[in-house]
Order: sequence, then C-alpha cells, then structure tokens
Amino acid sequence: MAAGERFLSEVKEQPAALERVASQAGAIGEIARRAGDARLVRLVAHGSSDNAAAYGVYAFSLLAGLTAFRESISLLTYYATAPDLRDSIVVAISQSGRTPDVVEYVEAARGRALLTIALTNEADSPLADASDVVVPLHAGREEAIAATKTYTTSLAALALLAGAMGGDVEGMAAAVVRCAELIETAIPVLEQDVAGTAALVQAASQLVVIGRGVEFATAREIALKLSETCGLLAEPLTSTDLAHGPVAGLGPHSPVWVVASDDPCLPSALEAAARARRAGAPLIASGDACDRVAGAGIRIPTPSAPRPILAPILSVVPGQLFAWALALARGLDPDSPVGLSKVTVVP
Amino acid sequence: MAAGERFLSEVKEQPAALERVASQAGAIGEIARRAGDARLVRLVAHGSSDNAAAYGVYAFSLLAGLTAFRESISLLTYYATAPDLRDSIVVAISQSGRTPDVVEYVEAARGRALLTIALTNEADSPLADASDVVVPLHAGREEAIAATKTYTTSLAALALLAGAMGGDVEGMAAAVVRCAELIETAIPVLEQDVAGTAALVQAASQLVVIGRGVEFATAREIALKLSETCGLLAEPLTSTDLAHGPVAGLGPHSPVWVVASDDPCLPSALEAAARARRAGAPLIASGDACDRVAGAGIRIPTPSAPRPILAPILSVVPGQLFAWALALARGLDPDSPVGLSKVTVVP
Repeated sequence: MAAGERFLSEVKEQPAALERVASQAGAIGEIARRAGDARLVRLVAHGSSDNAAAYGVYAFSLLAGLTAFRESISLLTYYATAPDLRDSIVVAISQSGRTPDVVEYVEAARGRALLTIALTNEADSPLADASDVVVPLHAGREEAIAATKTYTTSLAALALLAGAMGGDVEGMAAAVVRCAELIETAIPVLEQDVAGTAALVQAASQLVVIGRGVEFATAREIALKLSETCGLLAEPLTSTDLAHGPVAGLGPHSPVWVVASDDPCLPSALEAAARARRAGAPLIASGDACDRVAGAGIRIPTPSAPRPILAPILSVVPGQLFAWALALARGLDPDSPVGLSKVTVVP
Repeated sequence: MAAGERFLSEVKEQPAALERVASQAGAIGEIARRAGDARLVRLVAHGSSDNAAAYGVYAFSLLAGLTAFRESISLLTYYATAPDLRDSIVVAISQSGRTPDVVEYVEAARGRALLTIALTNEADSPLADASDVVVPLHAGREEAIAATKTYTTSLAALALLAGAMGGDVEGMAAAVVRCAELIETAIPVLEQDVAGTAALVQAASQLVVIGRGVEFATAREIALKLSETCGLLAEPLTSTDLAHGPVAGLGPHSPVWVVASDDPCLPSALEAAARARRAGAPLIASGDACDRVAGAGIRIPTPSAPRPILAPILSVVPGQLFAWALALARGLDPDSPVGLSKVTVVP
C-alpha cells in the first residue's frame, strides 16, 4: 500500500460514516431522555477525542443550555479524589474504547453520575462495558494512526446528543446528513488544493493554528494532525492566547493557520490573523470565511455548514488533507507516524 | 535601566508579595464563609491569570472537594449565552483588573452566581468594581510586560481561598509564608544556575514544556514566559498530550522541559521525559524531583514545598529566571517583549 493511502481513504470515508451516526437519532434521543435532569456534562477524553470534547463544551451549552467542561482526569486517577457527580452526566470519548484512564474514570463514575455515556468506535470494548449506554461511532475500522473519521463522527455524535437534550435531534440529524453531502463534494477539490499549497510550508519546523469558540476544537485537531504526521510542532491557540504572549515568538519561520468560519467569533479570529501578519508570520486561512483573512498566502475555502454549530465537522477536513499532503511532501508516511501507536497507554 | 532589570527585580519581590497575600488569611476566611454553599467554581481569566486558573482547578478540588473549571468565556461574550450559575461562585483573575471580557463576564454573573470574587493587583479597577468581593494581590506595581509576581500571588490567593473553603486557611497561610522563605533562599542560587545553562538552548526556535496535575499550570506558565520574552514558541503539554501526537514532531532541535515535582503525577512526567528522550529531544528538568529525570542535560532543582499543593509556587521560579537569562543571551530585553502590551485587549 502506498504511503498515506489508508489515511486518505479514511478521510474519504467520512461522509458515509457521518450518515451512519445521523441514522442513530432515535437511539440518541432516548439517551437524552434518560439524561434529562442533568445540569453538568463532564467530558472525559484524550488526544483527538479530547479535541472533540472541546467541541462538546460549546455544543452542550449552545444547543441545550448545559454547563459542560473537559474533566481533569488526573484528579481521579492520580490524586484519588471522588468528584461530586450529582446532576452530572459523563460523556467519555475514545475511538478504541481502551484508553485506560478514561475507562477508569467511567468505572468510578458509574452509579454516581446520572448517566455515563460512551462515544466509541468499538462497541465491544472496556469503555463500552463500563458505561451505562453507548453511542457507536460506526466509522468502520480506522487503521491510520492519526484519527480522522472517528474525530468527525465524534463531533456529529456530540451535536446529536446535545441537540437531543435541547429537544431537536431529528433536525440535527438532517443537518449532519447535509454536512456529509457537502464533504463528499468538497473533498476532490480540497485534495487538489492542498497538493499545490502544502509544499509552500515544506520547510516549517513549527506552526500555530488559531481558532476560537466552536472552532477552537478545529484548531486543536488541525494542529494535532500536523504534529502527528509532519514531524513538526504545531501549537493550537485561541485568538486571545496568541495575543497574551506567543505572538512575540512569531516570524517568517512560523506559519500561522487561521480557522475562519462565519461565526460570532470571526472578529476575534480576524484580529489574531492581523496580529500574526504584523509579526511577519505567513498566513494560511481555511473555512467558509477564509476570504476575510487579509494577507493570507494560502486560502482553503470550505462549504458553509447548514447550521453554525456543525461548521467544525467541515472545517477540519482541509487540515486533515493538508497534513496528508505535507507529510508526503516531506517524505513521511501519513499512515504510520514515527513514535506513535493507535492506542496510547501512559502511566 | 539595564535590559531585564525590572523583570529580575520583580521576580525577587515575590517572597515579600507572597507574605502580604498570606497576611490576608482572615479576610479570605470570611469570603469562604460567604461562599460556603458553592459546589462549582468558575474560573475566568486569560494569559498568565488563566494559567493560575489551571492551578485553581486542582486547588479547589484537592483542598475543598469542589468542582472547578476554567470557564469558556466566549460562550457569554460572543455567543450571548447566559450560563446557569446556580451553586456557582465565580473567581475572576486579572492582574490589571481591566481585561475586558473578564470584566464583562463578572458583570453578567453578579447577582446570579452565589458570589463573584476578583483576584487582582488593582483594587481600584473595573474588575474590582464589578465583583462582590476582592482579594488584592498586593504585589506592588508590575512594570515588566511578562507577569511574574502577580502570577505567584494569584496561586497563593487561590490556595488560601481553596484552603479556607476546606476549613484550614491559617495552616495554609503559614505554609505560604514558608514558601516565601524558601524562594528567598533559592533565588540567588537559581540566578547563578540559569546564567550558565540558558545559553545551552540559545539556538532553539521551539520548546515543549511538560507538566501534569497541579504542575500543568507551571508548564503553561513557563512556556508563556519563554514565548513572551525569548522570541521562540514554547508549547505546554500534559504528559498524555505529548504521547498523543506531538512526540512525533520532537528531535534534537526541540528541547523538552519537564517539571518534575514529588507529587502523585510524577510517574506520568517521568514517562513523558523518557518518551521525549527516545525521540532525541534534549531534556531540561526542574523541580524538587528533577534528579529523577534520566538523561536530563540541564537540571534546575527547587526546594520542596511545605505542602504538595503549594509546589507550583516554587516550581515556576526556575522558569521565570531561565526566561530572563535566555532572553538576555539572545540579545532581547525581558522587560519589553516585541509586540506585547501589559493589558491585552482583543475583540
């Protein structure tokens, strides 16, 4: 199999996988009913799944008025505290269902939280066994080390669950299906685009990815794909993070990627882009508002999402494909990054 | 005034400033009584203050059994949601008391949260005016752009408040005073140490700082000091973050700094250090357990804290001084980083 072939084919499987998640609207509506009294949503995850959790913080707030946050797992696993789980549901995300401390957290939470919910691509896994209910991601086997289709299906599952808790799971399911169609159409164009542009940053050893609000998750995930596959360090920052210090480290050697979606946070992203440009950083802009980023040397437009909350499902795709193209341009295999494994086990 | 003189003198003012915070134990105990029914602590901050907030997540959980999290401020300021603030106290941290969206958040929360508490160095500021109660940091005027003494005094104020909510403010105050004494003794030694070692990474354009648990705040703050003052990009990562992707981007060109404190999370930090070393990254180790980091080319020991929860007050000092020394070694002025201002205003 040629280098990057698995990664690319998994990127292309995303539309079908998203449709399979959307088809579970009925079951997800039932889970939302069981979680009906919840006020707090504790998101438990690592890696790409933790980036999906960063999206969940916004989805549960904007769609269902809930307080959601990424749990500090080490409080339980290292410090042996017993979190006060009243009024809480736990949403644990792990493509493999085998991330040890995520499983450990859910085992401790079950019976104390209102409901423990696993979002996983492995319905037969320790995480699925440990949880009260499972939302299968139905992404099919993911063989490339860097997650793609399990990330976007996690976003879709979170949007459906949050939409259901806000009383509209069917409308959200239809919108997810529309996203799948838009990605299907966009991928061939994007694949051509990135083949030409990735080589422009071939020499970069570092890169910053900016996003804010719902698109901070996208910035995190694009940075992670680039770090995993391209042998460079890509740091995700919010617009405000950038202004509070890291802008001082920017220059011609450090490209800045701005995720620009037509969203209430767009002014903040544009301001960060202008700040980075003044510091001399080359700009890459993606998203349905990328034409609003002045001075971008590379622009990668994406279709507008049918609902603003679903924009991140589309916004991440240019990052996935760019990481694939840049890795190949650098002579690396996007399927098998050096030093990484599919299930990350750390003490 | 010579380059870096303000920054260095403010680092050296930390012991006295910490003692002034500790002397407010009585008033902080009174605030804790007013906040007595709280279950949730919403931490609202940016920049260095947000790094202090990352510490607060652990302090409120470990000392008082509360659920604490860093609020996603944009949900209120950009998306116009009204968070459900029942059972919540708001702890807003801003050295200047003028960070616009932090002030905006507190204005919206006052009267709806159980209590809004400002930790600020400016008792006469919009944030102080907007809050129900104020804990002054009493750090004295901070003139260097990069915060130092307002960071450590914010940690101390959080430890005192969390300690008070857990029923032991006086014991915590005595321990903070002991930290001040330990820093006073340590600074002259550290100042010598870093003058010799900073030059070893003079050519680095990027750097990773690893910490976990209570020391993740330290990793964030050391990375921010280095980014602000040294014209490089320093990325803070938890041990698990590193293993989930960025380790693939490491090599001889990217030093990794490991914050190693004698704490339940130490095994995780040591595992990350070993992983970084296998990837060929030069290692810098700091903290009271830095001798446990195998293969570190630079070691910067710190005294052990009188209580484990206070370790971050000590652990950050080597990072402050290293940033100062490295900036000078690179011909930069630590007092006035390019492109930064003391009060960061972003849309």
